[in-house]
Amino acid sequence: MRQLVLPRSFDGEPLLELEGKESQYLTRVLRLQIGQQILGLDGQGRKFLLTLTEIKNQSCTLSCKLVEPGMQVETTDTLPSYQGPYPNLVLLQCLCKGKKEEQIFRQATEIGATTLALVSSRYCVTDLSDKKDKAVRARFDRLEAQIKEALQQSGSPIATNLVPQVLDLRDVPSWWDGQGLAIFFHQSTRSEEQQTLTSLLKDHPLDKPVCVLIGPEGGFSDEECTFLEKEGFKPVVLKTNILRSETAGIYALAAIQVLLTQS
Amino acid sequence: MRQLVLPRSFDGEPLLELEGKESQYLTRVLRLQIGQQILGLDGQGRKFLLTLTEIKNQSCTLSCKLVEPGMQVETTDTLPSYQGPYPNLVLLQCLCKGKKEEQIFRQATEIGATTLALVSSRYCVTDLSDKKDKAVRARFDRLEAQIKEALQQSGSPIATNLVPQVLDLRDVPSWWDGQGLAIFFHQSTRSEEQQTLTSLLKDHPLDKPVCVLIGPEGGFSDEECTFLEKEGFKPVVLKTNILRSETAGIYALAAIQVLLTQS
Repeated sequence: MRQLVLPRSFDGEPLLELEGKESQYLTRVLRLQIGQQILGLDGQGRKFLLTLTEIKNQSCTLSCKLVEPGMQVETTDTLPSYQGPYPNLVLLQCLCKGKKEEQIFRQATEIGATTLALVSSRYCVTDLSDKKDKAVRARFDRLEAQIKEALQQSGSPIATNLVPQVLDLRDVPSWWDGQGLAIFFHQSTRSEEQQTLTSLLKDHPLDKPVCVLIGPEGGFSDEECTFLEKEGFKPVVLKTNILRSETAGIYALAAIQVLLTQS
Repeated sequence: MRQLVLPRSFDGEPLLELEGKESQYLTRVLRLQIGQQILGLDGQGRKFLLTLTEIKNQSCTLSCKLVEPGMQVETTDTLPSYQGPYPNLVLLQCLCKGKKEEQIFRQATEIGATTLALVSSRYCVTDLSDKKDKAVRARFDRLEAQIKEALQQSGSPIATNLVPQVLDLRDVPSWWDGQGLAIFFHQSTRSEEQQTLTSLLKDHPLDKPVCVLIGPEGGFSDEECTFLEKEGFKPVVLKTNILRSETAGIYALAAIQVLLTQS
């Protein structure tokens, strides 16, 4: 663990008490000693320097200090040398099998995506609409657990956020609401004037969101493509083979992150 | 299946008889009918147009015609619109857990890597040197099976090749033998003069091999880095979080493929 994902209830208090599993993880697995420090990340992406001040049988207490931009912190774990900036990447992934979704969202969190959401589209083989609420809730809980673990292990400064319901593809444009560049990936060229990823990202400000929409195994239908284009989503054909969903999302995020940060 | 990976014994003969599982796959799973066509890929990356000419109980026969560059072929399956060119990517992956290696090599094949190899280095948690030959052979067989499946599903025109033994990191430079640009990925900057991925790939010819060396979960030791640098391998820090091995390889391959093909 390179950082602790702080509980949702935490709002910058000077002292934080952790109980149960999380307390045990810090004190028994990581064997953090009184006085030792670890970084914490809250849901808004704020970083806190946490110092272990008390260990009890079932709980522990940490003192919390907000890390201001530019402040040098030293913790018991080493941090990666790249500290940002990160592009604002939003991954909309059409539903696939549960295990694959977990892998995709885990890897997207590692890479530093800001927001992740599941989308249902015509050719999705997975359909959650006939599932019981409890089963859908359990699926989201597993995704949340993967995201939290990836945040803790990767030390990502981006507090990756999971949209808590499945978006219908028809509602995606209004949900996105023109926040920035929106791209959908497709296996064949849609028109002669279609732009490449490089030209779409040229002069794109790093902090302006980029939405990456990845289709299901069967791709998008022709009507879906036409609808997305009308709504301002740009089709992109990657200069590679046909990728499976779990490869396409990571490929696209890596490509965009590299094109926006490597200059 | 978008294409059939041809048996190793195939050397361009006009007729090919398939037996057992492969015959069954074509005739019972894909339900290919007499006269229908599918593409075949041989170990040298040559493409063949295969026409089903006879179905027996346990075997089937295909007529094989070499696909010349520029020749238009129509098969029963659609092909991706991107037909190349592909950069020549070589992935050297330090040993990790078996399932992870399979995932990495599967995805690298989808992306179109030319050559894949396993490397043992100091901080590898997996050590195959004390394993019985049979266990190591089984591990390579599973990797071969993943590569073959990925070739067939992705329709990749690159006949991805697996190096059939584990390379010791100390032997990697002589194995590589200066074929092209060699990069190793690292979590911290090695020197002030260190180049970025973009600058290393600037003006790199598309067909000249690029070797991508990915460390184990624990990274490379300082001595290993110094050794690699002396041997002409270039250190690169990706502008992202600390990635796990199974994310790092795909991220790096995607980044390099995009930088070399998107212009």
